[in-house]
Amino acid sequence: MTAEFARTSQTKMNRKPARGAYDEETIHAILDDAIFCQVAFIVDGRPFVIPSNFGRIDNTIYLHGAKASRLMKAIASGEAICIGVTHLDGLVLARSLFSHSVNYRSAVLFGHGRLVTELAEQMEALKAVTDQLLPGRWDEARKPSQKEIDSTAIVAFEIEEASAKSRQGGVLDEPEDMELPVWAGVVEMAQIPMKILPESGLPESVEIAPSVAKWFGNAVGH
Amino acid sequence: MTAEFARTSQTKMNRKPARGAYDEETIHAILDDAIFCQVAFIVDGRPFVIPSNFGRIDNTIYLHGAKASRLMKAIASGEAICIGVTHLDGLVLARSLFSHSVNYRSAVLFGHGRLVTELAEQMEALKAVTDQLLPGRWDEARKPSQKEIDSTAIVAFEIEEASAKSRQGGVLDEPEDMELPVWAGVVEMAQIPMKILPESGLPESVEIAPSVAKWFGNAVGH
Repeated sequence: MTAEFARTSQTKMNRKPARGAYDEETIHAILDDAIFCQVAFIVDGRPFVIPSNFGRIDNTIYLHGAKASRLMKAIASGEAICIGVTHLDGLVLARSLFSHSVNYRSAVLFGHGRLVTELAEQMEALKAVTDQLLPGRWDEARKPSQKEIDSTAIVAFEIEEASAKSRQGGVLDEPEDMELPVWAGVVEMAQIPMKILPESGLPESVEIAPSVAKWFGNAVGH
Repeated sequence: MTAEFARTSQTKMNRKPARGAYDEETIHAILDDAIFCQVAFIVDGRPFVIPSNFGRIDNTIYLHGAKASRLMKAIASGEAICIGVTHLDGLVLARSLFSHSVNYRSAVLFGHGRLVTELAEQMEALKAVTDQLLPGRWDEARKPSQKEIDSTAIVAFEIEEASAKSRQGGVLDEPEDMELPVWAGVVEMAQIPMKILPESGLPESVEIAPSVAKWFGNAVGH
């Protein structure tokens, strides 16, 4: 049995509760599949939503960015934050327009942020963010210097409440529509790497990084 | 010259203003490339961000959903709303970890919502949402009945302020890192259709819908 987040007034599904999940395993898997997240926060009583890279360690989400950015300031302030991640998995094309849908997986996280100030946690945070972008990349490139770390804001967000929602599967048309002469089906969608473009100035002796080659498998054409 | 949204305290870029844009043409193009958006709103003083399908007509964003959903209630309430759309276009893998980045296009919209109650606008809204999902699909499937329309909430959001931000191009390493023996380059990413799965109950006489066949071009394998 995996740990579960509480069903609170914020996370409880009002609609289609069967599509909801509150267990850490499901929520972590959705987060770990994502390259970026969407962070919602409030400034002067108005909502903002800004995309950002991120990394995860247990139930802590790490982000970094310019110290002057609204996003970093909002998370560092300790005010309530909401983070969303969504994967589009397919278009569900039904016989009736009303039954059209999408297959997706999404997670919504609620919690509060803080500024990360200790060097050890700062380095862990940057490693988590890098490996979320591309697993294994942290070990391949030049590590951040103290000066670089000091020039950026590194923040943490603790997942206090969370829920996941997803739809998978085929078309669900009404019985009376099943005989309509309308094509119906699912178009599977995915976010995938399309092309590798090495920098033009690379020395001949530098081979493609394992993190990239591994990710593309044997089919890599570069 | 295309129309521009005003640079307000909400939309003005604090960081890297060269990556910003405020013209309608750029912002509309980013919106029109998206299958879903992220809607941020405030409930009981706390921020929420929820993904949703949407459609656009000029500077109006239409969404629909269950009447009981938090999202529909929040937009119909007329309170301040923020909508974000983000496309991930590539991973930018530099010689130094600190210079890692992503190529992306994002738009952030600020405005207020309202409930759509007139049948003519309701139908336009549903057509816009359907054609955003898959252009041309509206003309292929059974149109919504009055009963179906009455059972759902259809809302509109007027774009009052907006900005776009993007990064494109190659690696930008520091001069002192250029000779490091680290592979560097860009991995282009895209959200694409992977597979067509027709419903198993389709009569033989029903051919694949032009909206789907067209989208896949000549390479369609179904």
